[in-house]
Parts: sequence; C-alpha cells; structure tokens
Amino acid sequence: MSGGLGARLRQLGIELPPPFQPVATYVGAVVVGGQIWVSGMGPTWDKEIRHRGKLGRDLTLEEGQQAARLTALNLLAHAVAAAGGADRVGPCLKLFGLVNSAPGFTDQHLVLDGASDLLGALFPGSPHARAAVAAPALPFSIAVELDGVFRLLP
Amino acid sequence: MSGGLGARLRQLGIELPPPFQPVATYVGAVVVGGQIWVSGMGPTWDKEIRHRGKLGRDLTLEEGQQAARLTALNLLAHAVAAAGGADRVGPCLKLFGLVNSAPGFTDQHLVLDGASDLLGALFPGSPHARAAVAAPALPFSIAVELDGVFRLLP
Amino acid sequence: MSGGLGARLRQLGIELPPPFQPVATYVGAVVVGGQIWVSGMGPTWDKEIRHRGKLGRDLTLEEGQQAARLTALNLLAHAVAAAGGADRVGPCLKLFGLVNSAPGFTDQHLVLDGASDLLGALFPGSPHARAAVAAPALPFSIAVELDGVFRLLP
Repeated sequence: MSGGLGARLRQLGIELPPPFQPVATYVGAVVVGGQIWVSGMGPTWDKEIRHRGKLGRDLTLEEGQQAARLTALNLLAHAVAAAGGADRVGPCLKLFGLVNSAPGFTDQHLVLDGASDLLGALFPGSPHARAAVAAPALPFSIAVELDGVFRLLP
Repeated sequence: MSGGLGARLRQLGIELPPPFQPVATYVGAVVVGGQIWVSGMGPTWDKEIRHRGKLGRDLTLEEGQQAARLTALNLLAHAVAAAGGADRVGPCLKLFGLVNSAPGFTDQHLVLDGASDLLGALFPGSPHARAAVAAPALPFSIAVELDGVFRLLP
Repeated sequence: MSGGLGARLRQLGIELPPPFQPVATYVGAVVVGGQIWVSGMGPTWDKEIRHRGKLGRDLTLEEGQQAARLTALNLLAHAVAAAGGADRVGPCLKLFGLVNSAPGFTDQHLVLDGASDLLGALFPGSPHARAAVAAPALPFSIAVELDGVFRLLP
C-alpha cells in the first residue's frame, strides 16, 4: 500500500475518533508479535454512543452500516494508539462482527459490509477474513460490536 | 500426520465443496505467518445453503451435526485454496462455532462435535481448541457458522 | 512480573480448579508458537457446574462476576496444563467473553470484569484485549463462557 494508513486517511478525508481507554484491567489493544489485537469496540465518538438498538427493529440497514463503519474507525484509532502511529498499522487480517439483532433479522453480513468496505478502501488489495454473527444484546445496547486483528508494520 | 491432508481426504472418501469467494471486501481465508485464518463459513455446497434454521426448533441434533460437518468441509476448502494445496494445510488449531439456537436449546457442544469429529479423523493426534456458542440468528439463517485457524505447512 | 504466575497465585491465596479434559476430538488448550490458546470454558470446579442460568433473570450481577472469575480460573488451569507449569504461563493477551443473558440485560462488560480484574491482579501491568458479548444460550446453561489467549514463557 503506497503511502501508508496516515496518507490514505488524509486522501479519503477520514478522521479517526479519539481512542479513549477503558478504565479497567483490560485495554483497547495489545501488540503481539507483529500483530495488533484490538478489543471489542462500538459505534462511539469519544465517549458518546452514536448508534444504539437492534437491527430489524430500531435501526435501518443503512444506519447499521454507518454503525459498523464508525466502529471500524474506533478499531483503527486503538490500533494506531497501540502501534505508536498510523503508518505502523498494516492491513486488517481478521474482523469479528456482532450485530445487535431483533428476532428474524438475518442480514448481519450486509451490516458488517459498512466496516469491511471502509477497510477495503483503506487497505486496497489486502482483504481480511471475517465472521458475522447476531447478538441478542450488546453492552450499553450498542448496535454493532467489532473486534479485529491488524498487521503491525515495522 | 502421514500422507498429508490430500491423502487423508482420499482415504476417507471425503470430497471438499468448491470454495466460492465472497464478492466483497473480505475473503474466505487469509494466510498469516504460519497460520491460515478462515472466515466464518456455513453449511453450503458451492452456493447452495443445505441447512437452514434453528436447533431446538427446526432441526434435529443429527441434522445440526451434519450441518457442522459440512461447514467444517467449507473451512477446509477455503484453507486449501488459501494455502495453495491440500498438503500445505496442517491441523486445525482453533474452531469457533456458533449454533443457530431456539430458546432453551443448550446442546451447542454436541452439534459442533459434527465438525470436531471430522477434524479429528482428518488430523489424528492433533486436536484443536474450541468454543461453542449459541447465536440467536445467523446470516441467511444458516444453522451453523464456524470460523477456524489452521496450521500452514511449509 | 516478579516471581511468575505460580508465586502470584500463592501470594493471593488462589487455588486453580483441576483442568478436566473434554472426552472429545478437541482439547482444553493448544500451544501455538509462543501462545497458549484455551478453549471455551465455563464456571466449573472439576466436573461440577457452579453457576447456571441467565444474567438479568436468574443471577445477580455479583453472581455473574463470580462466575466470570471462576471461568477465568479454569482458563488458567488449562493454560498451566498445556504449558507444562504455572511459571510458563505469561499474561493474558485476549479474552473473549460470552454472558448468558436474558432479554434486556446489557451489562455484559460489568460481568466480565470479574474475570479481567482477576487477571489484572495476577499479571499486574500487562492488561489484555477483550470483547464482551451476550449469548442467548450457552452449553449446559453455564452463565459465562470465556476463551482466551495467553503468552507462553520460555
């Protein structure tokens, strides 16, 4: 990828949210041998939750995709913080996505495309593995939760 | 394991489904330093979903185990495609399994034995770690979703 | 961490449960290149399930936290068995936690603090990444299921 993540974010006019650390015995991301493992994140901006509720009841598919996109930005923000800079964050390797779902909603994969398409734009030619699942509830009623693994660049 | 996965599949008379790639910004599997990380798969053969619905309501335990077995074959198919050949696919290291479950169904572990037993037969002496979970829904109403990590052989 | 996990457990007066192996084609934990991947565990002591049911209906938050803490002890017990000794088990890198949840319960993160706080006490200064999710059901109706990755020490 020419230019690195920092340049790509600027080219696409994308701003990352501030990666606020949980006040807890766990952290937003851990660096492990050439990889960055990011904790489960939600559709927040700083400390504000932007998308709450269930797909198939409270939110449209498009709103769910926006929630997935914003959640991916939080993954990136924590990856950047843990890696020590945007240009040390390489492509996403794996995305695990949970969609807060009302009974009968089975389009979890379309919701998560909001995250995958963003990562595809930021890391062209380096697609990730993914799993998409329904959750009956999520902490704070967030609409989407993602965790992810990114490559750490030297 | 003597003979590699290719020989083992032939000995057991097991045919892998064609690993159709998602038309998306993610892929079926990613090779990461000595491992193959396979995306969440379902009980499909080529593009046809063979087992839909919920355990504890729509499907018997035996049907669920068949769904888990077929899903594991899809994991293997994508692992083989990403590794560049069956004999470069080593033992499964980790299986994460989601069982589409009606309220009150708590035998997720028995369902997933359909996948674990297949992997045990293919990689004798090299058991995997596993987690078994209920999902309230899955994409396309598939009965089982699995993601997995396999060892990449040199 | 001075003194290793063995000393830390003794200092804190913590006894690990016996790591009973599943009679199955999967195992409690797998060692993979410098890491220990532990299978999904529950709040058991030896073969007895100590905490069953759903948060938000059958169990108080405090009971859920006790369940999470006991589940983390089982993760450690299997990590120790796979690593060949307590002092070869390094800090937890990633915790994935599922909380058996009644509809409307959204404090999964608080439940899992029962596990994270224990790991924080055992591995001070080495926090882990985490994801917290609701499950609509879990095998054997266990209240909490955790899987985890630990660092293997040389």
